[in-house]
Amino acid sequence: MPSFDIAILTTAEDLLSGDSTNSISAVVVDLLTRHGYRPRCSLAVSDNEKEIFAALNYLSRQARFVITSGGLGPGSNALTARAAARALGLPLVIHEEALEMVRTWCHNHHQSFNPANERVALLPQTAQLLVNPHGMTPGFSLHHNQCRMFFLPAEAMELRTMLEQSVLPQLKQDYPEEQRLHRRTLKLFGLSEVRIRTMIPGGRLPEGVSINYSHDFPLVLVHLKAHGEEADERLDQAEALLLQVLGDHLMAREGQTAEGNVGQLLTQAGLTLSLAESCTGGLLSSMLTRDPGASAFLNRAGVTYADAAKQHWLKVPQAILLQHGAVSEPCARAMAGGLRHESGTDLALAITGIAGPNGGTPDKPVGTVYLALASDAGVHAQRYLFAGDRSRVQRMSAFMALEWLRRFALQRLAD
Amino acid sequence: MPSFDIAILTTAEDLLSGDSTNSISAVVVDLLTRHGYRPRCSLAVSDNEKEIFAALNYLSRQARFVITSGGLGPGSNALTARAAARALGLPLVIHEEALEMVRTWCHNHHQSFNPANERVALLPQTAQLLVNPHGMTPGFSLHHNQCRMFFLPAEAMELRTMLEQSVLPQLKQDYPEEQRLHRRTLKLFGLSEVRIRTMIPGGRLPEGVSINYSHDFPLVLVHLKAHGEEADERLDQAEALLLQVLGDHLMAREGQTAEGNVGQLLTQAGLTLSLAESCTGGLLSSMLTRDPGASAFLNRAGVTYADAAKQHWLKVPQAILLQHGAVSEPCARAMAGGLRHESGTDLALAITGIAGPNGGTPDKPVGTVYLALASDAGVHAQRYLFAGDRSRVQRMSAFMALEWLRRFALQRLAD
Repeated sequence: MPSFDIAILTTAEDLLSGDSTNSISAVVVDLLTRHGYRPRCSLAVSDNEKEIFAALNYLSRQARFVITSGGLGPGSNALTARAAARALGLPLVIHEEALEMVRTWCHNHHQSFNPANERVALLPQTAQLLVNPHGMTPGFSLHHNQCRMFFLPAEAMELRTMLEQSVLPQLKQDYPEEQRLHRRTLKLFGLSEVRIRTMIPGGRLPEGVSINYSHDFPLVLVHLKAHGEEADERLDQAEALLLQVLGDHLMAREGQTAEGNVGQLLTQAGLTLSLAESCTGGLLSSMLTRDPGASAFLNRAGVTYADAAKQHWLKVPQAILLQHGAVSEPCARAMAGGLRHESGTDLALAITGIAGPNGGTPDKPVGTVYLALASDAGVHAQRYLFAGDRSRVQRMSAFMALEWLRRFALQRLAD
Repeated sequence: MPSFDIAILTTAEDLLSGDSTNSISAVVVDLLTRHGYRPRCSLAVSDNEKEIFAALNYLSRQARFVITSGGLGPGSNALTARAAARALGLPLVIHEEALEMVRTWCHNHHQSFNPANERVALLPQTAQLLVNPHGMTPGFSLHHNQCRMFFLPAEAMELRTMLEQSVLPQLKQDYPEEQRLHRRTLKLFGLSEVRIRTMIPGGRLPEGVSINYSHDFPLVLVHLKAHGEEADERLDQAEALLLQVLGDHLMAREGQTAEGNVGQLLTQAGLTLSLAESCTGGLLSSMLTRDPGASAFLNRAGVTYADAAKQHWLKVPQAILLQHGAVSEPCARAMAGGLRHESGTDLALAITGIAGPNGGTPDKPVGTVYLALASDAGVHAQRYLFAGDRSRVQRMSAFMALEWLRRFALQRLAD
């Protein structure tokens, strides 16, 4: 009995320049899990025939389904095909259909057909060809003992398309619907994992629904999972239970971002916004403009590092800067109030603080951050002390600002 | 003879919530490579005794050195220790010294000592204890056949410290200095990998220096590697050769960022800067303020989405907006010129464009971006057409702006 159901193998020229192997395996993990399949093992090895051979040898005994990516293209000298042929004890042959595909691709893309391209068609005997709609290099699959193995290129778009067109249909055939894992993810702000665990009533989740946690600072991600009959109904129940106690902290669900949702809420509520950022340096603004559509609500954002900029753009009175300093509640209030007056937006939000590592004082240590929000209800301000390094203080400040905006927009939509 | 020298094994509650396993293995890869050791294989499996057992069984035959992280803490029920004991055919025993460490830690941190904590001291017989200065859970090491295995916790800080204190000294003992891999990384902007390959004179690199490439869009990373005697001297030579042809495009080296270096150049040149961002939405500003010290050169940055903001903050004449539109060379020039006048900085840089996916026209398709730089030498502006999705157009625009600033500062420092 295999230990792993579904395993992923990625090969790369060099694990040292390592982001690539991680991002390739992330493409596979993401696509599989979205369709309810659960990879149990992910292995990355260097582009080396001996190492790929050892990996395939191992995985073909341990897994029922192996998805391999990399080592196939014209530059690779049929590395993965050689290793696969050796691991499965098959001869390596020129696959005529593959050769024809490569020729056609070269012809259609005005590339010369050279010996390196021909080697792309060198495959283990009995390999079944997999069409690559976006590139020269076809994939292939092999069936060995109890294990089905897919070999795909490493380029993200080619890989994704071939997973969808060639691998998923086979998974659907091999794994009955009731084995597929359904899941929900809730992204929560303002509660620690420990706190969330105590808030979820033990033993009250529907049978067969499991729960686990991960982190995307400062968000805590709660994952609910179920399979079998009526998995979705049981997840609906579980989600409803969780939202009763945690709903107030829900910033986004799977596939959504906190900033994207806040942007949509502002747009729905018909609220316009301007921002004044100091210690966050434009982070909040860049988050809100990552998705298209920000022009529907965002009027402007000022990163006012210099005091002069606070005076010019936000009309902060010099007296406040002299008397209280730029990191102070009066300054945050003046920034938000002045900006709202200047820009004429419904909301103006200001952030000023000390992100560190320098600039802290006994009165205002690193992590001291003031937020202020000006609206037709006046100016609301608050002081925070955030823990962590510069990047954490900046991120926490931006998320706290998003949380203020989310709550304001929800209130307006409810009124 | 083992296939892999050094292998990494990470275990996690769930590969689905997958960033964690990637980031844990990245901690190990990063630390090892910085010290010249080259991990050849990285395996991630679910927190499941059977799967960890299969992985250890495999790796102990294939590698000389295995670094495992995860499955050790009080919540894990000695998962990894159980799997290791089984894989190596050893009994599991309460390790008295480990028990004492856990007791002391609980005492010092005012935590109660409960049975779950006691299980942390359940280790395979013959395991050597590894001190964990930052947490409750000690690590351990085992020697089996030709393979040395280290078992460490998954928390990043604990893992990093224990790698430094317990694993590196052993690596230094096992691997002679001449086997250690020395490397240099050059981060280049404005050239494709294909172009760089043609520019590097074939066969002219010093013997034993290998070269490979990776990508961090829009930068291309060139990695030079060598080991053995005089590796550093040979890398110096190779680097000098590359810089002769590519030096003009060097934005950063290993451990540096393009934006960090540009900030330092501006500071060295004594230049002050203000920014006006439209389609990049604050991305450039947030990059430049990620590192501390930005207040030495950055006066302000305005994300001027609305036309009114361009008029108020940047003094763009309404006539230009009406006649040419916000995405135009005249507007970019007016943004930079107006901002420089308003802020009194040496430099004012403006970005305006269409990041997409909407807003393109036949004349100005998605990806059209204007950059303008105002200085005492007047206003210089240029139109670009960048390829890719919204995120790529935004990133490419920000990097092109960094490139302008880099060249300006270098010129001033050379004058």
